[in-house]
Amino acid sequence: MENEILFRQAEAKDLDKIVKMLADDPLGKTRENYRHPLPKQYIKAFEAIQSDPNNELMVATLEGDIIGVLQITFTPYITHQGGWRATIEGVRTDESVRGKGIGTKMITWAIERAKSRNCHLVQLTTDKSRTDALRFYENLGFKATHEGLKLKLNRR
Amino acid sequence: MENEILFRQAEAKDLDKIVKMLADDPLGKTRENYRHPLPKQYIKAFEAIQSDPNNELMVATLEGDIIGVLQITFTPYITHQGGWRATIEGVRTDESVRGKGIGTKMITWAIERAKSRNCHLVQLTTDKSRTDALRFYENLGFKATHEGLKLKLNRR
Repeated sequence: MENEILFRQAEAKDLDKIVKMLADDPLGKTRENYRHPLPKQYIKAFEAIQSDPNNELMVATLEGDIIGVLQITFTPYITHQGGWRATIEGVRTDESVRGKGIGTKMITWAIERAKSRNCHLVQLTTDKSRTDALRFYENLGFKATHEGLKLKLNRR
Repeated sequence: MENEILFRQAEAKDLDKIVKMLADDPLGKTRENYRHPLPKQYIKAFEAIQSDPNNELMVATLEGDIIGVLQITFTPYITHQGGWRATIEGVRTDESVRGKGIGTKMITWAIERAKSRNCHLVQLTTDKSRTDALRFYENLGFKATHEGLKLKLNRR
């Protein structure tokens, strides 16, 4: 029997593994704070996502273990004749399964999810230092037509 | 008495002027559909934005006339230690006031709004063909650290 990758909404019990995966990354390790107990702000963010019908935190599982995570935000815009967009963020796979096509399955799943929510566009930004990620998304049909601009604010 | 630019949430009566501004743009004119009566999908998108506490469609006014529009989306993420982000989209000023610093006032206002919502980051994407826009945002402190990737979906 083939091992199947399943997708589902993240639950509170998954949060530890999600943060662990986010922190296990060249950029993530500089900005996440994975420790026990998990810092409260992760739990608050998880609750905010769960209570928002336009945000979905999804996990990929293999034999019950979490092997990937991504977040999709659905946004209604006036532009493009009142079109909804899906924005993908925080895509990470477990190091044990990297290079096995799990990322492709996850993004393909997210694209289908965006279609089911009647979006006309799927968008994401990727740090210019992640050259592998850029190639990965271009292979999936994404076009790097835009500059992704960020302005950091001082936290209060 | 100096004429003051005021910011407020858009109301249903503003939608005609908003769509008119969005359509009056090199890229906007290829994808918007400004006519009377206004196509229903604009009204549906406006209602979806209004009913979502994490989306705000803002207008700038001068002596009661609408001279600018932008949309801000506030999104809770697990990444960056559970940080909220503000995403700016659909920024347009009326042709009659272009080149008078209205855009700078609008984005400065949006940044303050993001701070008041406890965001750690303000982000946006701009089409690579909009070289003036890129310079404009960089002058305001934004860094073009990311590629902005888009995948168009077929509308159902």
